[in-house]
Amino acid sequence: MRDGRFDELLNKAFERINASIDFDRRLYREDIRGSIAYAKALYKCGVLSAVEQEIIIKGLQSIEREIEDGSFVFRKEDEDIHMNIERRLHEKIGETAYKLHTGRSRNEQIVLDERLFLMDVTEKIARALVRLFTALFTQAKTHLHTIIPSYTHFRQAQPVSLAHLFLAYYTALRRDRNRLCGFQERLKEMPLGSGAAAGSSIGIDRDFLKDELHFKSLSRNSIDAVSTRDFILEFEFICSSILITLSRMSEDIILFSSDEISYFSLPDELSTSSSLMPQKKNPDSVELIRGKSARVIGNLIRILTLMKGLPYTYNRDLQEDKEGLFDTVDSTVDVLEVMFEVITGLKVNEERIQEVLRQSRGFLFATDLADYLVKKGVFFRNAHKAVGNIVKYALEKGKGLEELSLAEYKSFSRNFDKDVYGVFDYEKSVNRHDTTGGTAFHRIEEELTLIEEELKHLC
Amino acid sequence: MRDGRFDELLNKAFERINASIDFDRRLYREDIRGSIAYAKALYKCGVLSAVEQEIIIKGLQSIEREIEDGSFVFRKEDEDIHMNIERRLHEKIGETAYKLHTGRSRNEQIVLDERLFLMDVTEKIARALVRLFTALFTQAKTHLHTIIPSYTHFRQAQPVSLAHLFLAYYTALRRDRNRLCGFQERLKEMPLGSGAAAGSSIGIDRDFLKDELHFKSLSRNSIDAVSTRDFILEFEFICSSILITLSRMSEDIILFSSDEISYFSLPDELSTSSSLMPQKKNPDSVELIRGKSARVIGNLIRILTLMKGLPYTYNRDLQEDKEGLFDTVDSTVDVLEVMFEVITGLKVNEERIQEVLRQSRGFLFATDLADYLVKKGVFFRNAHKAVGNIVKYALEKGKGLEELSLAEYKSFSRNFDKDVYGVFDYEKSVNRHDTTGGTAFHRIEEELTLIEEELKHLC
Amino acid sequence: MRDGRFDELLNKAFERINASIDFDRRLYREDIRGSIAYAKALYKCGVLSAVEQEIIIKGLQSIEREIEDGSFVFRKEDEDIHMNIERRLHEKIGETAYKLHTGRSRNEQIVLDERLFLMDVTEKIARALVRLFTALFTQAKTHLHTIIPSYTHFRQAQPVSLAHLFLAYYTALRRDRNRLCGFQERLKEMPLGSGAAAGSSIGIDRDFLKDELHFKSLSRNSIDAVSTRDFILEFEFICSSILITLSRMSEDIILFSSDEISYFSLPDELSTSSSLMPQKKNPDSVELIRGKSARVIGNLIRILTLMKGLPYTYNRDLQEDKEGLFDTVDSTVDVLEVMFEVITGLKVNEERIQEVLRQSRGFLFATDLADYLVKKGVFFRNAHKAVGNIVKYALEKGKGLEELSLAEYKSFSRNFDKDVYGVFDYEKSVNRHDTTGGTAFHRIEEELTLIEEELKHLC
Amino acid sequence: MRDGRFDELLNKAFERINASIDFDRRLYREDIRGSIAYAKALYKCGVLSAVEQEIIIKGLQSIEREIEDGSFVFRKEDEDIHMNIERRLHEKIGETAYKLHTGRSRNEQIVLDERLFLMDVTEKIARALVRLFTALFTQAKTHLHTIIPSYTHFRQAQPVSLAHLFLAYYTALRRDRNRLCGFQERLKEMPLGSGAAAGSSIGIDRDFLKDELHFKSLSRNSIDAVSTRDFILEFEFICSSILITLSRMSEDIILFSSDEISYFSLPDELSTSSSLMPQKKNPDSVELIRGKSARVIGNLIRILTLMKGLPYTYNRDLQEDKEGLFDTVDSTVDVLEVMFEVITGLKVNEERIQEVLRQSRGFLFATDLADYLVKKGVFFRNAHKAVGNIVKYALEKGKGLEELSLAEYKSFSRNFDKDVYGVFDYEKSVNRHDTTGGTAFHRIEEELTLIEEELKHLC
Repeated sequence: MRDGRFDELLNKAFERINASIDFDRRLYREDIRGSIAYAKALYKCGVLSAVEQEIIIKGLQSIEREIEDGSFVFRKEDEDIHMNIERRLHEKIGETAYKLHTGRSRNEQIVLDERLFLMDVTEKIARALVRLFTALFTQAKTHLHTIIPSYTHFRQAQPVSLAHLFLAYYTALRRDRNRLCGFQERLKEMPLGSGAAAGSSIGIDRDFLKDELHFKSLSRNSIDAVSTRDFILEFEFICSSILITLSRMSEDIILFSSDEISYFSLPDELSTSSSLMPQKKNPDSVELIRGKSARVIGNLIRILTLMKGLPYTYNRDLQEDKEGLFDTVDSTVDVLEVMFEVITGLKVNEERIQEVLRQSRGFLFATDLADYLVKKGVFFRNAHKAVGNIVKYALEKGKGLEELSLAEYKSFSRNFDKDVYGVFDYEKSVNRHDTTGGTAFHRIEEELTLIEEELKHLC
Repeated sequence: MRDGRFDELLNKAFERINASIDFDRRLYREDIRGSIAYAKALYKCGVLSAVEQEIIIKGLQSIEREIEDGSFVFRKEDEDIHMNIERRLHEKIGETAYKLHTGRSRNEQIVLDERLFLMDVTEKIARALVRLFTALFTQAKTHLHTIIPSYTHFRQAQPVSLAHLFLAYYTALRRDRNRLCGFQERLKEMPLGSGAAAGSSIGIDRDFLKDELHFKSLSRNSIDAVSTRDFILEFEFICSSILITLSRMSEDIILFSSDEISYFSLPDELSTSSSLMPQKKNPDSVELIRGKSARVIGNLIRILTLMKGLPYTYNRDLQEDKEGLFDTVDSTVDVLEVMFEVITGLKVNEERIQEVLRQSRGFLFATDLADYLVKKGVFFRNAHKAVGNIVKYALEKGKGLEELSLAEYKSFSRNFDKDVYGVFDYEKSVNRHDTTGGTAFHRIEEELTLIEEELKHLC
Repeated sequence: MRDGRFDELLNKAFERINASIDFDRRLYREDIRGSIAYAKALYKCGVLSAVEQEIIIKGLQSIEREIEDGSFVFRKEDEDIHMNIERRLHEKIGETAYKLHTGRSRNEQIVLDERLFLMDVTEKIARALVRLFTALFTQAKTHLHTIIPSYTHFRQAQPVSLAHLFLAYYTALRRDRNRLCGFQERLKEMPLGSGAAAGSSIGIDRDFLKDELHFKSLSRNSIDAVSTRDFILEFEFICSSILITLSRMSEDIILFSSDEISYFSLPDELSTSSSLMPQKKNPDSVELIRGKSARVIGNLIRILTLMKGLPYTYNRDLQEDKEGLFDTVDSTVDVLEVMFEVITGLKVNEERIQEVLRQSRGFLFATDLADYLVKKGVFFRNAHKAVGNIVKYALEKGKGLEELSLAEYKSFSRNFDKDVYGVFDYEKSVNRHDTTGGTAFHRIEEELTLIEEELKHLC
Repeated sequence: MRDGRFDELLNKAFERINASIDFDRRLYREDIRGSIAYAKALYKCGVLSAVEQEIIIKGLQSIEREIEDGSFVFRKEDEDIHMNIERRLHEKIGETAYKLHTGRSRNEQIVLDERLFLMDVTEKIARALVRLFTALFTQAKTHLHTIIPSYTHFRQAQPVSLAHLFLAYYTALRRDRNRLCGFQERLKEMPLGSGAAAGSSIGIDRDFLKDELHFKSLSRNSIDAVSTRDFILEFEFICSSILITLSRMSEDIILFSSDEISYFSLPDELSTSSSLMPQKKNPDSVELIRGKSARVIGNLIRILTLMKGLPYTYNRDLQEDKEGLFDTVDSTVDVLEVMFEVITGLKVNEERIQEVLRQSRGFLFATDLADYLVKKGVFFRNAHKAVGNIVKYALEKGKGLEELSLAEYKSFSRNFDKDVYGVFDYEKSVNRHDTTGGTAFHRIEEELTLIEEELKHLC
């Protein structure tokens, strides 16, 4: 683009940061798709003859093949994917190539490529989510009747169905998939025809381009169309939200598969060992997922900080939008696949879970004891306080709640009776949480039925 | 909440970071609304008698009045807004107060409060956006026929209607408002009935609570309901997106109202002067808006980093979700109001703009010159190159493009003819960009009509 | 500062974000100190008479007392702490007050205040670190002979002295204290005399001001002096680094005091319980510390994003530098105090640790077994592989490594002999790691002696 | 590292995120240097014979050559650079290769490689800074007597020497170089001998390793040595600080080389043009530098978020520390070089600057006017107010301050006399700011002399 206007060659140090071809070449398919559609539109508005159109399209298609078979030579001097393809087109078809850029600016071209790229990627991530959903659904279905302690503050809290935990992950990620849907509406605005900033001056048929490239609507303002990157912001935010949930699932799995807890076992093919300590079986797969969340968040900050305070319209800073985006795309796709394998391969150690429940010696039923008193007419806060005192007493005596005598119970509240021992039943406790969204078995079964239906309509 | 279970008083240093009452008191209205609805639901499921329900509701209402008239004494020992209100209720109505917490956990209560708070705030921000839209619309309407240079890379690019720039801001912010709509669907999930994590054990009527509190749906998983903060993430992201656009508008306004450019003047009541330099008129209002964007982005990172890697379900770290959120809410509301005033008060210096257009000596028409050659049959890239050469030549000669002779033009391309001087017409240039989203006057008029219609249905 | 130049009152919405008095009032002491020194310097260069100087200083001192006893009325119309004090000074001493600002700009005044503030705060944090160091040192000394499993990937790795872990925390935080020292050199550059940007025009004696205010050097460039905020960046970075380490210590403590691991117990006064589950003892103190790290990181991003791309010299955006800074200061001071209490109050459950070591059934010695083979002449990687096979075999048989017979050992390598059982000795294993920085008891004792000496010279 | 312990192959999806060889191969030189030193130390402590040591070292050296001539085949199955080299060494020298890892863990090996890498990089960046310093120094020297308006709030403020602005950049970056020095002390701690976490068990001579690898001290705690990444945090922070300053310089240059201001011209070889608008000369080099700052900040957040809340000791998440680091290193080195070219190539348009000074019609002397009144005995605030009124009056009349009559001046203050017109002298105004750090010519000359001396002793 320096031809004509400048004589001098680019400064060497500058060339290194100026050229984006090392990373934007990834958009070659989108760029060629966009150029083919544009050639058709140029034909429609009379800039190209039918023959020229055909020559250009064939040229572009053969360039695509060259890139895919590795024979295409990318040149740094040509800066970016647009100019590399344009230069090669000229080599192949001669001067006709020079008509393709008529009335078109790289400012709009890059935005078109990015939107096309994200339309694809969004579909891919949506599908990867659905695949993970089915894994979570299957684990939930299998372990509906497995009762584990839920944890608050990483301390054993109340008994819940293990299925309830798997479905908690599902519910969180389900909302992210929902976010992706809303995002796609905003993504599918066709920017071509915006020129450098003022709009197209050659009367290009934008509706034709929209349909040809499978967009849903036209961008409404040419200045905005080349200036905004909010679609990248939003995409990176949604990925961050997904990764936040995956990082939390990873943490749960790291903890639950630890030597000391061992509710879960990770399959060997998702673990590694140590170069020094041969006994180690390390949960590297989920540690790496947890780690990847930091990267995706870092990329989000990068684009936010990049855009902050830039004047309208296009500024060259915007070139920096791509590498972080690509990295977020790859990281998200990768970790969704790994998490699918992790959830699918996770083994649940029922025996160990039984052992933990036994060892908890009734403390997991403290809330149930309070509820017991409430049913006998004690006001909730008083019941809560009484059970607090019982817990303290039991700990001091080194006893479990199950092991206290009725006399001991009665010393804290005369409302205790021998039916108090009926409280210490995990299944009953779980099933008492019988509301929409609660952990009672039949509530989870209802939810599983609902999800089964949902999964049919997704993807 | 230490009663019964613990004897000792809280450590003093710990108490300082443990108590959240200094900031979560802001949620008192939501907390009381939630408790009134919960009291009704407790009556419905038989935990409260009609009389008890009434006493509790009246008690809560009088507490609300106490808080609003400033007579309520917040106590740090009561940690948070929930316990402060519960304590005061007990002082007012005695033991009956102790029934209100039956089957309810602070884990769900805080999430309820936050969602109610955000339902309100989201409306408020949506309204503030619409107010700003009308200001942008009005400026656009007024300055439809004012032509300014558009800028790319902060260099004069092509002539555009000033209205087109105002509408670019509108178009960007319009999408954020659209994001708020999608967000509200996800926000309006009623979490009450989730208990600490396992769900309610007293058969509370969640549908009743949902309707009573104007939610749209029920949270589907009690573990997820108390663990997630994705609604805060998403809200803070949308605010960040809004602030990015506002920071860019601010930058434009700072530049365009500078001594050297002066297209715009900021009203005095939105400017300040210097403590040392009495001639200064500084655009502090828009500088501060630009600065606030950093804060809102910082808050987003805070909540992302907070959530990363936390195990399920509730962890106390989540207390740290609120101050950043409040700060983002206040900053966003404030800057939207200030930007409304800025846009409303902005004066456009038509004379100065005319002067700049004159001084540009034709360089703004370089693309038009290339288009001229294209129309004469020159291939676009060749035309572009020829005009590049002309520009270089003109600069070397110290001439404007308008001032070159026909002979000089012809020396670069024999396709030039005397009609070339017809190119140097700003209005014509603008109107040649005649596509949807382009800057041609009648295209902007169409867009204004469309927006006028949209604004009726918003808000 | 609008007097003279502007007629109109400030716009109301703008005033809300324009005034900084709500938060910069915190700098009143520094502002007054700076003004007193400046008054003395004005006297030195002949702007003030001796009497005027005295009147001004007395006036400023009485304002300080008013602020401290709460009788000072801060006014939003006066924008910031500088103008509030100047206005009050005028009320008190009349027109003489108007001489105090001679040749001084708020641009330099705010930087002076911030630097003075941070000089104080840095000392405070350095002292809080030293206090925490003594707590870590004491715990290390007490638990020198307590052996626990070290963890990699949150899986039991090799036996180490518990003291070694406490000293790991010390070593990390020690570097942050070292960073604070380097920072102070850069912090203690006296900016006064820089004017708005060009330097003082009244020949103020900057060396006098430097000494009077306990700075170490003079800022070297007036433009830089009023433009940079790198001292805030660096301070917030160091706090982030501290909080990263504290968040990791918190994680360790949360894990090690869990129901399932229980190496540590947190004192009751640093724990809380649940509003619904009376048995819970939650480690809220360390969860909150972990959470605070997110906030301090968020503040760092805020200031980085704020500064990015701002032109020289002063811009009003810089007003936004303070709230995040104050928040980071308070958070850091608070969490250092809480962590001191946590470490001091931490109880180590020796019995439980013994039990875990017993239950590990020899797997913690896998590396020692490999070392055993190496000593018998097996090459390391082969030894590592052989022990890997033994571990797999033992797990399949449901046996511990200690429980395998010599025959079983020999089946994996003929180098095993009956002295292999000597490997299973925790103390020996620990003491074999006998290098500087290793966990051998006497190495730790050396380190403790060194630290004892260091602690004397710190603070 | 799965040999022996695991049978199964790694899961394919997991392998993709597990292998780090695609990026950590960059550390091959450091890894080989570390291994050669380690082989020598193994010989010293008797693990290797002299012959074995020699074979290993020669093997490693030939591997280094293979990597450098491109013949080395990196294998994903070997995960990382350590295992790739170890595997190749085994292919080359057989079983002896298996002794090299004796008592060494990848946990310490990667930290060693990273520290060696950063020791190098830090030198490189320090040198690049010095190169930039000389460019700034030269420009300052050349333009000592060029007077431009300084800007606050991007509004013309007071006249300053252009040299003063160049030296402001120098002063800011000088502090960053100083930060690098303090950092190096902390960086040069030799971690080898820390084992997986407990320390070396084979009595390796750490002091020998330290000297051999040019470190300054030994890491003091083996747990800390393999767990901390604070040296990466600090390095990335310092780069962020550098980039903040470079982004601000870029902003200045973008603004000052704009069509409307034109104080500066960027050389053609550091500019580009537009694909659509042939007249454009865009400052892409500095826009890209400004943009790169966002990326470096994003990387800093990545590592901060990564580390937050990780338990001790090593966790696999740490693998994610490298790509962001490499990216920050490359970006920083690149932009420092480009900025050197920019500063070196910058042309200062003296004529245009003269024109702007003329056009400012005296308003740049408003502070001088106030000083004039102060010297006549008017109290500063009153003088400031009077001049504010004069400015307002002049603007209303459409006059410059220079153009007001004495009568007009006198109408605002009777202290004005005909010597008032002596105020309007740029050189005098600049030279009145005569303090250390001020813009007076001879002060800058002093500073230039000082810097000339400093530059001799740097690097």
